[in-house]
This record gives sequence, C-alpha cells and structure tokens, in this order.
Amino acid sequence: MARGGPRPTGEAFRVLPVAVDAMGGDKAPDEIVAGARQVAADDDIGVLLVGVEGRMGDTGDLPTLLCTEVIGMDDDPGQGVRRKKDSTLVRAAEAVRDGQAMAMVSAGNTGATMASALLRMGRLPGVIRRAIATPIPDLKKQHPTVMLDAGANAEATVPMLLQFAQMGAAYSRARYGVGRPRVALLSIGEEKSKGTPLVKEAHALLAEGGHGDFEFVGNVEGRDFFEDQADVIVTDGFTGNVALKTLEGTLRFLMSTLTGILTRPEVADAAGVLFPHLLPLAGRLDPETTGGAMLLGVDGVCVISHGSSTSVAMVNAITVAHDVAVGGLVAAIASAVRPTGDGGEPSPAAG
Amino acid sequence: MARGGPRPTGEAFRVLPVAVDAMGGDKAPDEIVAGARQVAADDDIGVLLVGVEGRMGDTGDLPTLLCTEVIGMDDDPGQGVRRKKDSTLVRAAEAVRDGQAMAMVSAGNTGATMASALLRMGRLPGVIRRAIATPIPDLKKQHPTVMLDAGANAEATVPMLLQFAQMGAAYSRARYGVGRPRVALLSIGEEKSKGTPLVKEAHALLAEGGHGDFEFVGNVEGRDFFEDQADVIVTDGFTGNVALKTLEGTLRFLMSTLTGILTRPEVADAAGVLFPHLLPLAGRLDPETTGGAMLLGVDGVCVISHGSSTSVAMVNAITVAHDVAVGGLVAAIASAVRPTGDGGEPSPAAG
Repeated sequence: MARGGPRPTGEAFRVLPVAVDAMGGDKAPDEIVAGARQVAADDDIGVLLVGVEGRMGDTGDLPTLLCTEVIGMDDDPGQGVRRKKDSTLVRAAEAVRDGQAMAMVSAGNTGATMASALLRMGRLPGVIRRAIATPIPDLKKQHPTVMLDAGANAEATVPMLLQFAQMGAAYSRARYGVGRPRVALLSIGEEKSKGTPLVKEAHALLAEGGHGDFEFVGNVEGRDFFEDQADVIVTDGFTGNVALKTLEGTLRFLMSTLTGILTRPEVADAAGVLFPHLLPLAGRLDPETTGGAMLLGVDGVCVISHGSSTSVAMVNAITVAHDVAVGGLVAAIASAVRPTGDGGEPSPAAG
Repeated sequence: MARGGPRPTGEAFRVLPVAVDAMGGDKAPDEIVAGARQVAADDDIGVLLVGVEGRMGDTGDLPTLLCTEVIGMDDDPGQGVRRKKDSTLVRAAEAVRDGQAMAMVSAGNTGATMASALLRMGRLPGVIRRAIATPIPDLKKQHPTVMLDAGANAEATVPMLLQFAQMGAAYSRARYGVGRPRVALLSIGEEKSKGTPLVKEAHALLAEGGHGDFEFVGNVEGRDFFEDQADVIVTDGFTGNVALKTLEGTLRFLMSTLTGILTRPEVADAAGVLFPHLLPLAGRLDPETTGGAMLLGVDGVCVISHGSSTSVAMVNAITVAHDVAVGGLVAAIASAVRPTGDGGEPSPAAG
C-alpha cells in the first residue's frame, strides 16, 4: 500500500499483526523472538517479525519482514534513520504507515525508535511534539500512573504541557479504562505559586478547565508517585526523565540490596519463608510487567520497551500494543488535542 | 556584638554554641530539645536553644535565647521573616551574624530558614545564589553524595551551576574529607550533547577545567545516585528537588511496604531472623542519620533538617553544624567561588 493511502479499518485492521523489531534490545534477537512466538501462540495476536535474514534464530511459523540493516544502540538516532533506510526500525514504522501492521514494538535504540516513528508515521494533526508516556506502578490503586514526557523532548512550552495533559488523559482512558483521569503537574510544592515560570503558567492554564475530559488536580511532588495522587503526571521531558530514572534506580538499588541480604546462607530458611510474600511485590514493581512506554502524538501505535527486555517483557509490550491499537488509541489522541474537544474538525481558532 | 562587627576567631569561635531553633519541626519542641540536650551532654558541643519562653518544656541547663514569635510551617517565608522580627528563626540567624553562635540548625519552615539566613547573615561575596546541598547515601562508597541545588532556586543559570559545582566540592571536602571531589552534572544521558541548553552550556564550561579543586566527570543520570559515579551532583533547584523527593519517596514507599510484609503474623519467625540483617541497611538509608541539608553560599553555617526530625536527627544535625563550622566551611566556600581560586582577592575580571 502506498504512503498516504487509506489504512485498513474495522475487521481488516483487527487482523493486522504487530510489527516487532527482532534486532532491538540487549537480549535481541533470542528473547525478542521468544516473546513474539509466545504471544502469537497463546493470545491470538498476530506478530510480524522485522529482522535481518539469518540473524533471528528460529522464528517458528511467524511471518517475517526481512531487512538488511540494524540501527545499533549507540548509533545517532537521526543519522541512523536517514542513512539506514532498510533497517528494522525504519521498516517496522513503514509497516504501520502502510497499513501492513497495526502497531510497532521495539526494545532497541529509543531515540531511533522515536525518530523512525515520527519520520515514517508522521505527527498527528495539531500535535506540537510527541511525548513518551511511561507507566509507573502505584500499589495504592488498580492501575499505574502515566507520566509524560519521560524524555522525548529536553524542553517544553506551556502549550506542549497542555497537550501532554490531553494526550496522557486519553492514554490513561484507552489503556486503563480511567473514565475521567486526574491530571497533575509535577512541581516542587503543592501550591500554584511553586515551580518554574513554565510550571506556574501551565498550572494557571490547566486550572481554567475546558481542555478536555480530565480533572486537573494541581501540583504533585516527587514524593507523590506512589501515593495515588493522580492518574496522569505531566512534566517536561528533562524533569520526567530524571524523575523516572531516579525512581527506577532507587527501586533497583533497594531490590538488589535486599536480594543480597536474603541470599546470605545464614538466613536461607527465613528467606524461604518470606520469598512467596515478597514475589508479588517484586512482580508489580518490575518494569517488565508494565508493557513498556508509549510514544504519543504520532500517527500510529509505537511501544518503546526497556533495552533489557526479556521474552516476558515482550509478551506484555506486544499485548499492550495490540490492545491500544484495537481500542483506537491514535484516534483518541487525535481527538484529545483538537481545540474543540468534541472529536470533530478543528475550530477556526486552531488555524 | 553589632552587625558587621568582627566575629570571634580561633578558640573564641570554637567555644561558641550552635543555635538550635527549638520551635521548628513537626516534633518540636520535645524532640528538638531532647536532641539538643543529648548532644550537649554527650559530645561537648555547646548548644543555644532559641525558643519561646514557657513553650520549650524542660530545657535542663542549656542556655536559651528567648523570643516571642514562631514562623509556622505554613507561613510565607518572606513575609514571615519581614514581619516576625522576634521569631526563633530570625533570632537564630542573628546569633550567628553577631558572633554569639557558630552555626544555626532548624527543622522548621525550610523557606523561612533560608530567608532568615540569607537576610540576616548575608550572601558571601561573589556568590550569585545560595543553594541547598543534600547528602544522599551511597552504599558503594564511604560517604554520601552531595546533591545541589535541592530546591533553593526554581531556576538556574550557567554561572550558578558553576558555583554550585565549586561550593559542592568545597562542602564535600569539608564535610567528608574528599580531597578532590568528582563533580557531575545531572542530565538525561551521559553524552555532552544530552540535556537542556543550560546543562549543555554548563557541561562545556566545566569541561574546560580550571574552576577549582575538583574533577569534572561529565553527566550522570537519575539512575546513578547509588552507583558511586560522583561525589557531588550539580543541578538546578527544580530538577534537584524533584529528584530528591522522588528518591526519598521511593525509598519510603518500598521500606513501608516491606515493613508491612515483615509484620504479617505468619512470617513473624522469619522476620525475626532477618531484622538484624535489615536494620543496618535501614539505618544507612535513613535521612535521620545524614545530618540534614546545608545552605551553602551564606555567610554562616545553616543546617536545614527534615521537618519530621526526631532527637536522633537533631543530634546528627547539631554535630554536623558544629563540625563544619569549626572546620572552616564558610571560608572554604568563600574561597571556592573566587575567580582566582587561590583564596586571595577576586581577580579584576571578577568585577
């Protein structure tokens, strides 16, 4: 199908496969292919493996899209996409663009994944900048909190933060079924007077209301991530990336330190008693189970998985990609950023 | 002693007390006074309790400086300092300014503590902005990492980040004896091309070298706080505050969740075996043990303790305040920000 042509809809869309970058990630291709095969066998989700011939191992009976190049983890994203036109990432994004796949998933170079999706699928009409939305587990509620932007943009403007709120709310609804998500701004105090000029101006704009189907609940702080304060937390990509990595790094540090203590020979019996109690906690906090981050604002579904993804993470990521694609995430995002907010055509004021 | 007069030096300085705000903090005055009495009894450190008559409980034989007002936790910092001239915070800062105390410590309103110190002690010559330096425990090395600015300023400039590096290095040396501290910038990637324009420009300036007695080691990410990557981590106060609270909130969430699991009746025996192994970890990560944050760049030692400080935290905070005051922290900071870097007069270029 040619670029720009109509994409399949309805049942024709539902039977499209999820394009999976077989070469991306620290454990590619083995864990990636294993996860893809598992989800295809267990869950009746179609998978299209995008990889280099002879370098994917045993792909079973999965359909493949063969390429000749791979954008490496250390490649410059922009150069990689421009120069490696037959790379797995570029071809996976083109498969979505051309109606051959309903979504793409990669655990490879994050910047190159974003660049491939943006350059090949394009930005949704009206979207200023795409953003990375990352799920953060919060044991005090039934679903994770969505934080965006987790690092797609080093800087933000007030209109960008407003759109992050709109896109994040649409994603929370599509992914977790939250009817009217609570949206908060990440700042350094609860009061509207706290924060940078950017945050204060965004606060004033969001507090006006009328920006879409979500409830603005004001500022939250870094200490509130696990306190059920919001369903969507909005911030610029620099702060969001620092906060996310701080959170993940702190969890990883404490979990690995605890594991070190629990594996001391002198506490083996006690550790054996406690492990069944600790495992559910570890499971709920494990990034592997959350399904990866989502690139919002592009004209297609693009899931960005952790570079360390195992087959378990891939099963989750592919399942999430399938579910939100079938659930109409892209249309919901497109509608959310329209100034009229009614799902119709942009108002004249939108220019 | 009149404002601006010479302060005691040498042995006369060494015998000055530490001024402790008896009314500041969630657990004031009981835990504050208890900590002050304990450190004065055990450690041969003089303490001057700054409080409201009849509201401090049993102060034992500690000397007191009596005031009539308290700046509350919810008071506006600027207004509080301007209007409550006979408040404990203002009087504690004046005691340092006037040579009646070697340092001040408060677990009260952070903003008002900063404002009192800045307005009464004054800024050190050449310092653009004061900053909050917070110790972050890192079990992979012998001393905590110093992060600044943890929230004194919502925004920063390149010259401010340079001074944060200089002041943080001087503090790491004075407080932890690190001869030539490794200084890093907090960013969203290790490469010098990653981050906001502010971070990239600061990186370029720091990489030139010649800014003082520290080694610039480039960028670190949020995941590196516990990985022994640096002795000093420099960032703007917005990002630093979000990162610190995210780190503390994540630690607190995981520790309290673990405590909940370990206190289940069915694991009581196993928990009893494990507690002695877990306690040292909890102790090293407990903010109570780190001695509080330090306000750098003002003309005097000012320790900002957690609002939740107990007597244990106060013992540590008062001890740290005493030790860095006697160790010459303020002179070291003043010297570090001087353009010549030789401890002499500012060079003509400094204006």
